[in-house]
Amino acid sequence: MTFTKPAIQSFMPETRTLMGPGPSDVPKRILDAMARPTLGHLDPDFVGMMDEVKQLLQYAFQTKNELTMAVSAPGSAGMEMCFVNLVEPGDKVIVCQNGVFGGRMKENVERCGGTAIMVQDDWGKPVDLNKVKEALDQNKDAKIVAFVHAETSTGARSDAKAIVALAHEYGCLTIVDAVTSLGGSELKVDEWNIDAIYSGSQKCLSCTPGLSPVSFSNQALEVIKNRKTKVQSWFLDLNLVMGYWGSNQKRSYHHTAPINALYGLHEALVILLEEGIEHAWERHYQNHLKLKEGLEALGLDFFVEEQYRLPQLNAITLNEGLDDAALRTKLLRNYGIEIGGGLGVMTGKIWRIGLMGHSSRQENIDKLIGALKDTL
Amino acid sequence: MTFTKPAIQSFMPETRTLMGPGPSDVPKRILDAMARPTLGHLDPDFVGMMDEVKQLLQYAFQTKNELTMAVSAPGSAGMEMCFVNLVEPGDKVIVCQNGVFGGRMKENVERCGGTAIMVQDDWGKPVDLNKVKEALDQNKDAKIVAFVHAETSTGARSDAKAIVALAHEYGCLTIVDAVTSLGGSELKVDEWNIDAIYSGSQKCLSCTPGLSPVSFSNQALEVIKNRKTKVQSWFLDLNLVMGYWGSNQKRSYHHTAPINALYGLHEALVILLEEGIEHAWERHYQNHLKLKEGLEALGLDFFVEEQYRLPQLNAITLNEGLDDAALRTKLLRNYGIEIGGGLGVMTGKIWRIGLMGHSSRQENIDKLIGALKDTL
Repeated sequence: MTFTKPAIQSFMPETRTLMGPGPSDVPKRILDAMARPTLGHLDPDFVGMMDEVKQLLQYAFQTKNELTMAVSAPGSAGMEMCFVNLVEPGDKVIVCQNGVFGGRMKENVERCGGTAIMVQDDWGKPVDLNKVKEALDQNKDAKIVAFVHAETSTGARSDAKAIVALAHEYGCLTIVDAVTSLGGSELKVDEWNIDAIYSGSQKCLSCTPGLSPVSFSNQALEVIKNRKTKVQSWFLDLNLVMGYWGSNQKRSYHHTAPINALYGLHEALVILLEEGIEHAWERHYQNHLKLKEGLEALGLDFFVEEQYRLPQLNAITLNEGLDDAALRTKLLRNYGIEIGGGLGVMTGKIWRIGLMGHSSRQENIDKLIGALKDTL
Repeated sequence: MTFTKPAIQSFMPETRTLMGPGPSDVPKRILDAMARPTLGHLDPDFVGMMDEVKQLLQYAFQTKNELTMAVSAPGSAGMEMCFVNLVEPGDKVIVCQNGVFGGRMKENVERCGGTAIMVQDDWGKPVDLNKVKEALDQNKDAKIVAFVHAETSTGARSDAKAIVALAHEYGCLTIVDAVTSLGGSELKVDEWNIDAIYSGSQKCLSCTPGLSPVSFSNQALEVIKNRKTKVQSWFLDLNLVMGYWGSNQKRSYHHTAPINALYGLHEALVILLEEGIEHAWERHYQNHLKLKEGLEALGLDFFVEEQYRLPQLNAITLNEGLDDAALRTKLLRNYGIEIGGGLGVMTGKIWRIGLMGHSSRQENIDKLIGALKDTL
């Protein structure tokens, strides 16, 4: 058998302006960090850097949780890590769905052998506390309440603090999707008493995609330690992962960490540290207001009610007759700007304009508004 | 609650000479590729690059398997992808163990609800075909034979072609760990009729860690399509992943691919293409012979019998009285050279000297032999 060589050369991507639902623009500082010399995954210098990543993530999440780290895979693996470690066969989980990602949570619960009690809200609306309360009243044996803090598919923000407090009244743990909120809008893991939370590197942290920051409270850790069954995933089993990410000096090999990707995350978090997290939240909000002004001047409307809008992800209702795909292709090909279309049932109905992390700046807003003026 | 900012600055790693069991030295071309501008994961230019990665991996694996791609996570996730997709509760899997990674396969089988029939060989020895045959004779209902082609924990090579042929005689599928063999020594997925195979980016491909090349035969794919139960992992479910990596034009979003890491893998595979895979295998072998000469001149012995040795991973027996950890620290701190210690029961008994990918070159051999001369 002979295999002819494919005629393929080095890949040279163009520079884009990334204003979709992530990845966001990656600062050169982060790209440069990723290109630094690779160390071994058990090298003492690398292990020291991992400790720093942990401290930096604690700052970003505003938590003292010891079990705070980056999963060596994208956000959807971070989600899966939360579910496979906390859900055992037979467990009841109340899942709040107001967009695509609540549906993915349901899939996760079921694949762990759990039962998902769905609390449905319209896409674009926040999670309704009354409905959650009703579900809790009807399911006193529920173990967990899971919800999305910032729905990446719609741009709606739910009241994480209130949902967590309610869940705790009923003795439930909480799993929170903060993929789009971390670094972009207020998020306080300890003050809000969140039990398990996951995010992504490529949204408001402006790192490249591929890593999922997670954090677990001591209460969550206790539940994991007292499981009756083994975690179904070897790769995501926290009992094993912590042997590598843990704080003791003797690290045991679990898997080979994505060294250079972690350099990038480290640098992204140092940038956040330099700015200060409250300043980052405020910058995202101020730039959202500027974008809003520009979009409204073009006659475009927001999909989400004002009080629930995420500053970092702006969903715009598409008017009838607008050719979604053709317009986005034009923005990409003529202006180098990426914005996001709708996901799932929202396809063709909304655009998602991200002002995440490094993408949340005046220059990008001006560029997009100018391009939309020409294009629409 | 207030969170003080940790005093952490940008991380500046030193340059090492990586001669452990992986990661190997990453060429500057690959690091530069990873620092190129991030595209969106649904950008048509990025999707075009993914198609090239697929073709390049087909070349590296020597296969025409349509289902050939890179898992967005390290090799242990690639292993888990093979098992969670092919093993259903109640399935019997014959697992050949002659080192650490056979043990991890057992964990995977059991976490999928399957039964692992273990075929044990001494560490450092290849898998014994007679024992596999015996296990197959005693377990006519076995569905899969799983084994490690190149044991990273011992440096022993097993006869993949013969084991696969034997498994097929008994109607079993095969899962092959090629983490350390891909790109470093002969591996022919189609000619050997391998059904499911996984590898890592950071060994003989000399990319940074974090991606796991995998390939599945049509027979394996049929089994996956006809599963009675859902795959327990959402993130690794091939039915879903293929919607994103598939060949049809309309790609559906599954997870956000690690864009820049894939630039790196693309470049690593282009480098392999330029050299030609047979030449890469031959280079690894020739450099192994040179290293052998140097080590033997220092009075060091190989752990594995000559005919089963992997050229890319050289396990050396430690003489009594050698202070394993202290010596490796000295090599790292005084010479910038990383070599590997023993894993599991081999700790303190062997060293693992990698000549993988870009690390397999004269310069590295000379540097190591010189440093060992000074140090021992």
